[in-house]
Formats: sequence, structure tokens, C-alpha cells
Amino acid sequence: MKGFAMLSIGKTGWIEKERPVCGPTDAICRPIALAPCTSDVHTVWAGAIGDRHELILGHEAVGEIVEIGSLVKDFKVGDRVLITAITPDWNSLAAQDGYAMHSGGLLSGWKFSNFKDGVFAEYFHVNDADGNLALLPEGMDLASACMLADMVPTGVHGAELADIQFGDKVAVIGIGPVGLMAVAASAIRGASEIFAVGSRPNCVELAKEFGATDVINYHDGDIAEQIMKKTGSVDKVIIAGGTVDTFIQAINMLKPGGKIGNINYLGEGDYVKIPRTQWGCGMGHKQIVGGLMPGGRLRMEKLASLVMTGRLNPSKLITHRFEGLESVEEALMLMKDKPKDLIKPLILL
Amino acid sequence: MKGFAMLSIGKTGWIEKERPVCGPTDAICRPIALAPCTSDVHTVWAGAIGDRHELILGHEAVGEIVEIGSLVKDFKVGDRVLITAITPDWNSLAAQDGYAMHSGGLLSGWKFSNFKDGVFAEYFHVNDADGNLALLPEGMDLASACMLADMVPTGVHGAELADIQFGDKVAVIGIGPVGLMAVAASAIRGASEIFAVGSRPNCVELAKEFGATDVINYHDGDIAEQIMKKTGSVDKVIIAGGTVDTFIQAINMLKPGGKIGNINYLGEGDYVKIPRTQWGCGMGHKQIVGGLMPGGRLRMEKLASLVMTGRLNPSKLITHRFEGLESVEEALMLMKDKPKDLIKPLILL
Amino acid sequence: MKGFAMLSIGKTGWIEKERPVCGPTDAICRPIALAPCTSDVHTVWAGAIGDRHELILGHEAVGEIVEIGSLVKDFKVGDRVLITAITPDWNSLAAQDGYAMHSGGLLSGWKFSNFKDGVFAEYFHVNDADGNLALLPEGMDLASACMLADMVPTGVHGAELADIQFGDKVAVIGIGPVGLMAVAASAIRGASEIFAVGSRPNCVELAKEFGATDVINYHDGDIAEQIMKKTGSVDKVIIAGGTVDTFIQAINMLKPGGKIGNINYLGEGDYVKIPRTQWGCGMGHKQIVGGLMPGGRLRMEKLASLVMTGRLNPSKLITHRFEGLESVEEALMLMKDKPKDLIKPLILL
Amino acid sequence: MKGFAMLSIGKTGWIEKERPVCGPTDAICRPIALAPCTSDVHTVWAGAIGDRHELILGHEAVGEIVEIGSLVKDFKVGDRVLITAITPDWNSLAAQDGYAMHSGGLLSGWKFSNFKDGVFAEYFHVNDADGNLALLPEGMDLASACMLADMVPTGVHGAELADIQFGDKVAVIGIGPVGLMAVAASAIRGASEIFAVGSRPNCVELAKEFGATDVINYHDGDIAEQIMKKTGSVDKVIIAGGTVDTFIQAINMLKPGGKIGNINYLGEGDYVKIPRTQWGCGMGHKQIVGGLMPGGRLRMEKLASLVMTGRLNPSKLITHRFEGLESVEEALMLMKDKPKDLIKPLILL
Repeated sequence: MKGFAMLSIGKTGWIEKERPVCGPTDAICRPIALAPCTSDVHTVWAGAIGDRHELILGHEAVGEIVEIGSLVKDFKVGDRVLITAITPDWNSLAAQDGYAMHSGGLLSGWKFSNFKDGVFAEYFHVNDADGNLALLPEGMDLASACMLADMVPTGVHGAELADIQFGDKVAVIGIGPVGLMAVAASAIRGASEIFAVGSRPNCVELAKEFGATDVINYHDGDIAEQIMKKTGSVDKVIIAGGTVDTFIQAINMLKPGGKIGNINYLGEGDYVKIPRTQWGCGMGHKQIVGGLMPGGRLRMEKLASLVMTGRLNPSKLITHRFEGLESVEEALMLMKDKPKDLIKPLILL
Repeated sequence: MKGFAMLSIGKTGWIEKERPVCGPTDAICRPIALAPCTSDVHTVWAGAIGDRHELILGHEAVGEIVEIGSLVKDFKVGDRVLITAITPDWNSLAAQDGYAMHSGGLLSGWKFSNFKDGVFAEYFHVNDADGNLALLPEGMDLASACMLADMVPTGVHGAELADIQFGDKVAVIGIGPVGLMAVAASAIRGASEIFAVGSRPNCVELAKEFGATDVINYHDGDIAEQIMKKTGSVDKVIIAGGTVDTFIQAINMLKPGGKIGNINYLGEGDYVKIPRTQWGCGMGHKQIVGGLMPGGRLRMEKLASLVMTGRLNPSKLITHRFEGLESVEEALMLMKDKPKDLIKPLILL
Repeated sequence: MKGFAMLSIGKTGWIEKERPVCGPTDAICRPIALAPCTSDVHTVWAGAIGDRHELILGHEAVGEIVEIGSLVKDFKVGDRVLITAITPDWNSLAAQDGYAMHSGGLLSGWKFSNFKDGVFAEYFHVNDADGNLALLPEGMDLASACMLADMVPTGVHGAELADIQFGDKVAVIGIGPVGLMAVAASAIRGASEIFAVGSRPNCVELAKEFGATDVINYHDGDIAEQIMKKTGSVDKVIIAGGTVDTFIQAINMLKPGGKIGNINYLGEGDYVKIPRTQWGCGMGHKQIVGGLMPGGRLRMEKLASLVMTGRLNPSKLITHRFEGLESVEEALMLMKDKPKDLIKPLILL
Repeated sequence: MKGFAMLSIGKTGWIEKERPVCGPTDAICRPIALAPCTSDVHTVWAGAIGDRHELILGHEAVGEIVEIGSLVKDFKVGDRVLITAITPDWNSLAAQDGYAMHSGGLLSGWKFSNFKDGVFAEYFHVNDADGNLALLPEGMDLASACMLADMVPTGVHGAELADIQFGDKVAVIGIGPVGLMAVAASAIRGASEIFAVGSRPNCVELAKEFGATDVINYHDGDIAEQIMKKTGSVDKVIIAGGTVDTFIQAINMLKPGGKIGNINYLGEGDYVKIPRTQWGCGMGHKQIVGGLMPGGRLRMEKLASLVMTGRLNPSKLITHRFEGLESVEEALMLMKDKPKDLIKPLILL
């Protein structure tokens, strides 16, 4: 079969591989919608997860089942399915511990285009099909469906990690596609004022549509100072962009007892820096937590229900549309080059 | 001063009383908006809290401060203020324990028209002014402001007690004004499907506007059966109406691990009944909790910010408007008689 | 193979059956230690779970693996293992939801001697071996090991459900073996005063050894009144005995904001009764939750570590010891007849 | 009155001051037991909270009330009382928010020897007496009583912040008096293996007595490596000593989904360093929180009940005893010089 792969750090290309083998609890799918992710860009051009050779890229897809393991109970060949980007081993101690996304070790629930071939291929493999697939709800558009793989659950997890409560003032740092979903999730989790930090015009516009009450442009000065000038300290911060240094501003703008939820993959730097005095010399109850999106079928079904009932509309993220597997290359390059009007591309097959 | 009072069970009338005395941490307010509550009806005509004599009624008000205690730091005469229906003693062990609404004993944070005169008077007394008042936000309409006393915080507390999470299926039993706010709160807390149980046409219409996806009419048969036929079991139930027997249906429709949040004042019956087998013979992890709305300034400020940012619009509850203190009598009778088109009356002064 | 079975309600006897078949993720074990449980008595003589025919009894065992499924990764033939009484399907949506014990439906994680043959046989079947077995720690005595199947995790779950915090005053109603473990668990969870409700002398003695500070004898009058006379209301109640009416006293003795954790299987009665006024007319924040013990390997390993580090000593529950599979009959009759000096019998094989 | 004060950074001495004035909600006490704290040393000789002039030192005391405010309800002159080192303003929005220790701003619940004169004087002032005093329980020894001011609640808070659950493996870094109480608190919160990191012989001995199962000596190599060699990663870490760099090792030894509770006042360094890769590139769900001990009467009463029921014995911390107010100087110098056999000194008056 044909797949679009990372050949080595900085290099991509089309390769031929054997179609993956279906174990007794697995499924083999063919993609019907795909999307590249900024992490694919980091994987290839920044070498964020180390070198990889002939590893098929991609972890955001909607698919159709073409082969199904003998022990799978709830799915059959021909089913059109949502597939979560993170596919934990549900029969693991990490899952029993409530952290299935780390089954097999830190971050190891992330398998596609990390430990095994990704979804940018004629066929791809899904482990633990009963636990990691969900039926594509009747009537759901493929754009939204494809955003349910990663953008929605990651953005939503930011609001969960930051533990947003009714009437909270929330800052969302970074309003790329994940940050935008974090804005939307904050709004439907009960936040009142939402400070969206970003500058790209169509992201700013969508942030407002999704519920941001203020937009903070980092070109206009220190973002913590700008926000605190407007509102005093905030109750919660969701970090969906920036670097290891972004936590300095996040701590600075946070109230004692506030919480930071990080959903930004930190690709560089030795240390995340927590400013000692603003962190209350270690005693300010400013809680810091960051986490990989939880995967799994139940969560995907619940998030899909938010789309079906009109609470979330992730299809609005899509700014560029393509057709055919071959266009994943062009779509990925778009993510790499980030033209000004891009939020997220989608490929239909 | 003049006040509209419960004279004894079943009797109301206008009385003359001394204007209340302002202690060092207290405030005396005059009302600028008032609303009667179903509990006022229960208090007078059902004798729900026992007999009371010449007790001024009412606990929902917006006011202007006319006198302020010497130890109050953050408010002054002339401030227009939100007043929460429940006014805890913040300097109590119950408050340190996280249950300020029960300071002084079970439910004893409820003082207005229960332990002391209520707000249907020329003047009323607010204990712990720094802890229980909030400035009326500039630009807030008085209808919303008055609903922030009780309807909003009680409805919102239902969503908190039921611990609604992203994508939850929620049943809200009862869609009077409190239930309607519970519907709205569920929607902005992340629920997907919301089953609103009720039958009055304008309540049904408003429930849909506030986010209900389905309306269940108890005239059409057992509500648990109706809901389960549509969706299987629900994740959470908010009880905002009914009787001690309503919990039977709530347990029946609830998934194992689900939660019931009760915000309905149960005025009659010896026992709340939990059906043994459907409760998993005591082992089904179906959690039951009911609670008086938390009061206090911080919460009022946070809920007010939901109104100011447009997340909630409680003014839509108001179906009837009056002017002048003397019209509290007519407004209360309206609550007692519940004409078909009534949701909530408001009196402006 | 030979097994001791429920023949029908009220009847038991030895039967011959085929040795169970080992699926790809399962294990077949032979018992090396066994214990009967009060639930076995309820199952047979009260018909608590309905009629059953030729169903092998027993769910508390330590075993040795004699056959192992082809997909099991972490166990092999010859391993001596702890087996949890509740054996969830870890690859289920209920497990993803955090309620694995209800996988397959309300209480359906309870499979042994409920949906399938139990452990009182030459061989027994364990589903999901990687998820539901744990290696018998080197040096652990078989009495403690066998108590880790049900008595320890159920008692401990009571302390979890009641959410015991440092310095809490806790009442434990019922001090049979489960209640005694709840007392011990409360003490190592941070309770200060622990009121153990019971009357059997050796249970009373062991309750004190496990950390009870007061013993309340229900023969001396209403237990809520006795406890409140001593201490005022309590912060938390664990119900480990009694009937559907026991909740009345539990609610009465509980502070506003307190929590009840029920771990008593309620075998009879239509309704659990919650006293309306003492429950704050539905608004007292007295939380009620009851739940089946969570099963699974991680939890068993963690609880076993409490035994190995000397925090818990469940072997003290054993008052009667037997040898040989054939003595399960005598041991079960002992549980049925409850002689005065019995807490828990153990059978070694 | 006479008091022992910080004169400026690096200088201490006896001064004369006016006896503090008692406001309507306050109390004036005379000390009956006192203890110096390492923070007093940091305050004076490291200038940890900036320069202070003629500020009376000390925040750990047991006292007798000599004057009481007119609005105080529950205490009277002559009462012997526990006084918590942190004395929040309970009538503040921070208290309503659940973070009373930060009332008035980050860490501002810490008033003694920070914003106002401390307890090393003939008389000292306690704000919000009803909220911040507790009656000395009859029969409690003064050593334990004095340790309830700071050592017990701070150590206990470490176990709360780290959210210890039954069977957790816990590392406690630093076993000075606070760390030792964190060890004891971990043991009675349900930890199984407790790795105490320290080297001073009498601290090591007491750590074992309080429940440590292993002692790790940082002189023997990297503590994370030592612990992981013994047990793999730990579930929780309590940081009760070290520097801003200690978090590196804490993160390294922590499982995905684990939690760090910091109770160490970080006096130096610009940034707390979180190692990026071991923190899962921001996505490892390794939660970091540090917090000032909560103060207040309810908590003090609850912790006192742990002492009275024999769950905790903080008097074991006392290695050196003095008599008379004048000996606070010698006791403080002892804390500064840290002789090998010192854990904590106590002064009786």
C-alpha cells in the first residue's frame, strides 16, 4: 500500500509498505477524511520525537473498517468510524489508574506516527478497536468528525485540566486550532470572561465567535500585564501555544489558588520555568498540570454528542479543503508554511 | 416602616414594624427590585417552615444601601447592590468547612423570611455586608439582577451538584424558574443532550431556548421510561420539582456511577424514597446529593459576570412586571395561583 | 471437576461439572485458599440475587494458575495469584467511565457465583487475567491474601466513598468482617474519632485494635442518639451492616455537608428511606453514595502493599481455619449459623 | 512590653513595644509555650521576606487570652488556646474562594512576624479570634499543642496537596520537623511505601517511627535514581526541603498522573525548574502544586483531635526544652546553628 511518510528528520516522501496486519482485538481502516497536525510538522522538521525512518505520518482521520479482529464485539467491516488520535491500551494498569493515555509509559498512548505508522496511507491499523473507535454519527459532517480525532479532545482537555468553574475568568494562550477549541470549551464549561491571546486575524475572529470576550495581542506588550490591567488576575489559564517560558506569564497572571492547564506540546528547552516569587515561593496554591488528551471511545462519543447537539462546531476550523490521498502532501506543507489565512486543512477521500 | 408579612399560616397582610437596626458588620437597604418566590407561597400557605407571626416575607431583591455598619470595608451608603437570598455567617466554622449555607445549623444560612424579616418592606437588614453584598454591575438590567438573588444561583447549583461533565446526558426534572436556570446552567457546563421534564407551554419554549434538546411531558407516561426509551440511561439528573417520590424515577433513569443533584425544597412526606434494586442494592454508585444554594459575594460576582458576558440571560424568566412596593401582594398571589402564562413576576420600585 | 454449589434457593450440594474453558485473555486457577462470605449465605438462603441452579458458590480465593490464555501477557502457568472478587471487563465503556465494576450493567462486574461458577471448586475461571489477577507477594500469609479478595477492598471502599479527611469523626455502622476493615481503613485514612457500632465481643475487641475510639451498642438505644450525645454530629458515616432503614439513623447523626458511604448489600425492602427533614428537606448537602468494591489488578496490588508494609493486618479477621476443599461446606454453614465467636473462616488447600 | 525582634537583616535583639491593641473581633494572648521555626531563621539571616525593622519574631505558640474583642462569641479571658501560625481573614473573598490563607493577597494569611509582630513577646495579637483560635483540649501536652501551630498543619497539608490514596508509594523529600510530620501524615492517609529522604540520624530514626519504610540518603547519589532503583516510579512526592532544583528529581521519580505537593518555602532562585522531557513535554499529567498551610479554628480542632486520639504524636519532634520567654533567643540560635541532634526546641513559660 501507499503512504506518505517521514523518511528522516527534515525529509518526507511517498513510500510503499505492506498493509498492516489485524490482530484479534484490532481493526484495519481506510481513511475517508484526513487532516495534518502541527505535531506532524514538529515530528518531521523539528525532530521533536527523535529520528524516524519511513514512518507513515498522520493521526487525524475518519475511516471505514475494512478488516476486523476476531475478538472485536461492537464493530464490523463497512462501519464508518471516528478514530481518536490517542489510542490507549485499555487493558493496562495505566488505564485502571485513570491515565490510559500513558499506558505503556509516559505519552505512550500516542501511537500513530510515533510508535507505528500513521493514518496518511491507503490503510491504517487501530489497536483495541472496541475501546478506540466510535461509530460516525449519522448526519455528522466529515470536517467535524475529523476534528474529533485531536483538535476537539485536546482543546476540551485544556478546559478540564484548568478545572473551569461557573463565572471563572480564563486566559487561553495561543489560538491555533487547539487553542480555539479550548476557547469554545471554556465557554461551554461556564467561563465568563475569556482572554484569547493571539494575533492572526481569522483566528481572532473565530475566537470571538467561539466565546472569547477579549483578545490580547502579544505584539502589544507583555500578555500578563495586558490582562491584569484589564481584569486583575485570572482564575485559570489554558496554555495552547508558546514555549517553556510561557509559564512565567501564566503564573504571573494567575490568582492564588488558580490553575494552569497545559495542552501545548513543548518541543524545546531543558526546563519549564516557574517564577519563584510569583509562585508564592512554592506556597501560592497555583496548580500546574499538563496532559495529553485522553483517547478512547466513550470520550469520543461524548464529544461527538456535543457536536450533534450544536454545542460545538469544530468544522469552522477548516479553512482549506483538498481531495484525494495524494493531497496530504500539499496539506502538510501548508501546515508547515502557515499562510496567514490558514487555521486547519482537511482532505476528503 | 411598612412590610408585607405572613401573619400566620395561610394569612398575609401589611404590617408596620421598626426599621431594622444596623450592627457593625451589617447593612440596611431599601429595595429597588423585588420578586416573590414559590418558597414564599410554601411558607405562608403550606406552613413549610412552621408557623410564623408577623414575619415580613421575601428573599429576592436588588437594593440600595441606606445605612452601613462601622466595620464594613467595601460598601457605602448609596451603593446599589445585589443581595443573595442566602446570607451565611462567613465567620463560622461551617464556612471554614465549605458549607457556609449551613452556618448556624442545617439550612440556617437562609435567614430572610425564615429567621428574620425578609425584603418585602421599605427597608431590610443584610448581615455580614462585606460577605453577602455585591455591587450591581453597571449596565445590568434589574430583572437579571433580581434573578441573581435566588433563581440563578439555585439553578446553577443543580448543575454543580450533579457534577456535569462535557458530553453528559442530563435530565432536568421540573422547569419552573429554578429548573429553567438549571437547564441553562447545564448547557453552559458542557451537557450535550438535556431532557427537560415539564409541560407548561412557555416554560417548554424557554427550556428549548436555554438549551434543552428534548422535552418530556409527565402527562405522557412515566418520565423515566420516556427518557430511557429515547436515550438509555442518563449520566446526571437535576431535580428541580416534584416530591419525595420523584427520586424513584431519577434513580431509575440514572446510569451506574451517575449523580443526582437535588435543588427542590421537599416540603412534605416523611421519607425520600430510593428504590432499592435500581439503586444497585446500595452498591450502584448512584450518588445522591441535594443542597441549598451557596450564597455570598464572590459567587454572586461570578454569576453576575455570566450575565454581563451574555452566557446567561435570566431576565427571560420574567413574564409579569409590576411597579411599587404595594404590588408585592398582587405578585405573590400570582405565584400562588400560577396562571398558565406565569414563569416569574418582577416588581420595580 | 467437583464443586460446591447452590442447587436452588435454600439448597446446596456438591456437583460435578466440566472444567471451565480458558479463552484467549483468561486464566484457569485451582484454589489454594478459600473463604465463604455472608453474600454466599444471602445468595443461597435469602435468594438475594434470584434463583440459581447448580451454580458453584464462592468468590474469595487465592489461586494457582493452571492454564492461561494466549493473549495474556503478564501471567503464566504456576503463578500463585490474588484474585479479586469483582472481575470487571476492563475493555468496556464502563471502565473508561471509571466504573468498571458496573461493566455489562449495574453490579455486573460481580461475576463469580452470580453470572458464572464461583471459586468453591477444583478449578475456576478468571476473565481478563491481565486486569484481574495480581501475583501473590512473596511472604504474604494466605489468610491476608484471601481477605484481599473482598473484605479488604470492600471495607477500604467504604472509607473512600465516605471521603474521609484528616481529623474526621466517623461512624462505622456494622462491624462484621467488612465493617472491621472499614474501621481499619478509616484509621489509616486520617479519621480521628471512630464510632464502631456493634455488639459481638470479639468484633468489638478487634474494632478497638483496628482503631475504633468508641463502641456503640445498638442494644443500648438509638445509635444516632448515642453517638450525638457523645460527640454531636459526625462528619462521615460508613454503612457496613443493617437494613434499608439504617440510613435514617445515618442521616440523623450526620452534619450538613457530611457524607455516607454504603458498602452493605441491601437484600430486602422496596425503598431505602431518607428522612426528609433531617436531610434538610433535600437541601442539607448530606451526600449519599453506595458502591460495589472496585476490582482489578492495580487496586489489588496497592491494597496488598498496605498489608506488606504492615499498615493493615486483615489476617486478624480469621477466627476459624479449615483444610481441604471439602470443608467449604462446613465453613459456609458456620457463616450461616454465625456462632458467637465467628468473624471469618478460612480454608487452606 | 518586651519582645524578641528582628532589628534588620542579620540582626536580632530584645525590644520594648506597646502592648498590641485589641479590636472588636480580636484577642490578645500571653504565650504559655513557644517554638522557633526555620522560617524565623530565614527571615532574619537570609532576609527571605525582605528587610524588617523591630519586628517581633515567632509564629508558633500556645497562649492564654488576656483580652478579648467585644464581638468575639466563643472565647473569653482566661481561656488557654491553640493559635494557628497562619491567621486568615475569614470574612474575605479569598476565604469564600477556599483559599483563606491568601486573604489579602498571595501568602497574606501569614501575618505573625511578617506583617505584624509575632508571638515572641509578653503579649501578642490574634486577628479574627473566633476563626483563628481553638481551645487547648484538656489533657493535651504543651509540646504537641505548640506543634499544632505550624509543624503539624504544614506537614499534613503536604499529604493533602499530594492527594495520597490507599496504597500509594510516596517520597517525602526532606525530613526536618515539617517533613517528619509529612511522613506521619502520609502513613495515616493510606500510603504504603514511604521513602523518606534525609540523613540526620535522629530524623531518620523518627521518620521510621512515623511510618517511613525506606530511608534515602542524598549523600549516596541522585535520590530519584535511588528510589526508582528500589521501586520504579512513585505515585506521589511531598517536597519538604531542598531548593528550586529539587523539583527536577521530584518530576523524574514521579509516575505519569502522579502529583507533587510542595510545602517547602523556596527562599532563593529565580525559577523553579521543571525538566521538560520527564514532564512529558508538558503532557505527562504530573501535577505540581505547592501551598501555604491552611489556618483556622476548624482545621486546628480537627488536627488536635488526631493528637488526642493518638493518631499523631508531634511531641516527639521536641529534642530541646527551655523555660522562660528570655530563652527564645537561645532556642532560635539553636535553630540557626542546627546542631546534629536538633529536631525542634520548645520553650515553656
